[in-house]
Amino acid sequence: MNPKMGNLIYAGKAKTVYETDDPDQVIVKFRDDITAGDGVKTESLVRKGYYNSVISAKFFEVLEDAGIKTQYIKLIKPGYMLCKKLDMIPLEVITRNIAAGSLLKKFPFTEKQELEPPIIQMDYKNDEYHDPMLNDSITIALELATKEELDTIRSITLEINSVLKEFLLSKAILFPDFKIEYGFDSEENIVLGDEISPDTCRLWDAQTSEVLDKDLFRKGEDGVMDAYMKVASLLLDETDIAKWNVEF
Amino acid sequence: MNPKMGNLIYAGKAKTVYETDDPDQVIVKFRDDITAGDGVKTESLVRKGYYNSVISAKFFEVLEDAGIKTQYIKLIKPGYMLCKKLDMIPLEVITRNIAAGSLLKKFPFTEKQELEPPIIQMDYKNDEYHDPMLNDSITIALELATKEELDTIRSITLEINSVLKEFLLSKAILFPDFKIEYGFDSEENIVLGDEISPDTCRLWDAQTSEVLDKDLFRKGEDGVMDAYMKVASLLLDETDIAKWNVEF
Repeated sequence: MNPKMGNLIYAGKAKTVYETDDPDQVIVKFRDDITAGDGVKTESLVRKGYYNSVISAKFFEVLEDAGIKTQYIKLIKPGYMLCKKLDMIPLEVITRNIAAGSLLKKFPFTEKQELEPPIIQMDYKNDEYHDPMLNDSITIALELATKEELDTIRSITLEINSVLKEFLLSKAILFPDFKIEYGFDSEENIVLGDEISPDTCRLWDAQTSEVLDKDLFRKGEDGVMDAYMKVASLLLDETDIAKWNVEF
Repeated sequence: MNPKMGNLIYAGKAKTVYETDDPDQVIVKFRDDITAGDGVKTESLVRKGYYNSVISAKFFEVLEDAGIKTQYIKLIKPGYMLCKKLDMIPLEVITRNIAAGSLLKKFPFTEKQELEPPIIQMDYKNDEYHDPMLNDSITIALELATKEELDTIRSITLEINSVLKEFLLSKAILFPDFKIEYGFDSEENIVLGDEISPDTCRLWDAQTSEVLDKDLFRKGEDGVMDAYMKVASLLLDETDIAKWNVEF
């Protein structure tokens, strides 16, 4: 039996979180809203939430299978994910395997330069201050996390990167960079939360270098939803499609 | 005998570095130029270089007495400092004991909030990219320093902060923040270089909170040179004044 959807807890830019009858569980609704440029550019893309939720569910299942703790419990149906309730840490943890995007504007890296070891960057999730990049010292002074928590976050993040990079490569997709968020579960474990989707990752076709992520929207190009659907169709196997009843 | 001043090696925004007849030594000339706002605001303040050089010399002597390696050999005369030649690391290492300035614009700290432990921030000294703030991971990827070098820099910086904070407090001056730079000497030691002066520190009168540093210039206020002279007169003892023949 599926849990009952209760009151709204929190509405973000692309997802809404609802209570359930279990105080330790929430339902995350993946919406069709898409924003870019610090919220300046906003649109709605039909079925974006649908595909992002199945892509995120697949990534979370791959990570859980590799022994990494996530908020994921199950996909109730496309668009609606049952999750552990987390006390979120206001950090955007960005991992970069290939130089792209804002990194090139801020620092003298070469476009598509391979970054090995990957760069880990943490931005403060704070609209008023426009999500500024942090360093450990500032993060600690702002009491966003302790040094030990930052080291744990970095270590889990590198593991997540390894697992997903390999999984994606097996599907002929490159993984230049991605943004994740963490929270504390009821037992004070640091657990992966939020989503992993073409909204929060760069994903490039390994053969053609075709962009399959939100950069298409940022640049005002056509075919955003076609790209997201392509990612879903590449990542999901027949069992996933049947289990979640995904339509293409 | 003083070393002979040779060819110009490097001209920065406020100092010029010249060769000497010893390949391991340079003469640093402290100029009167003063800039702010990423070089947008530029002026010349009569005798600024003169006072900054004696203030820097005093700070370097205090640090050397505390066992910290610096580039300083001696002040030839006000304005001209004999230094070890360093291979500079392009990092601006900023230490913050009290929240002020750009920190307040970028992050939600309260004005004059005490920061204990102090914040250490490293910016990439790069005009083209406007001295962006770094984190360790990006610094290493840009090959500006290794993890071990960054840890060494942080550890020396905290020592310098302790020594100077205490020294300044004994002169009734608060030390909200300061920027320093490091380089490698001929034996590959990481050594404090550049300058420590009202151009590169925030210095506040401990009684009145009066600003005694470059913030006066940034804000277009009068009395910039009076403040710098006041700092010199507070820091130097009679021996220093006689030794360097400093005139007020």
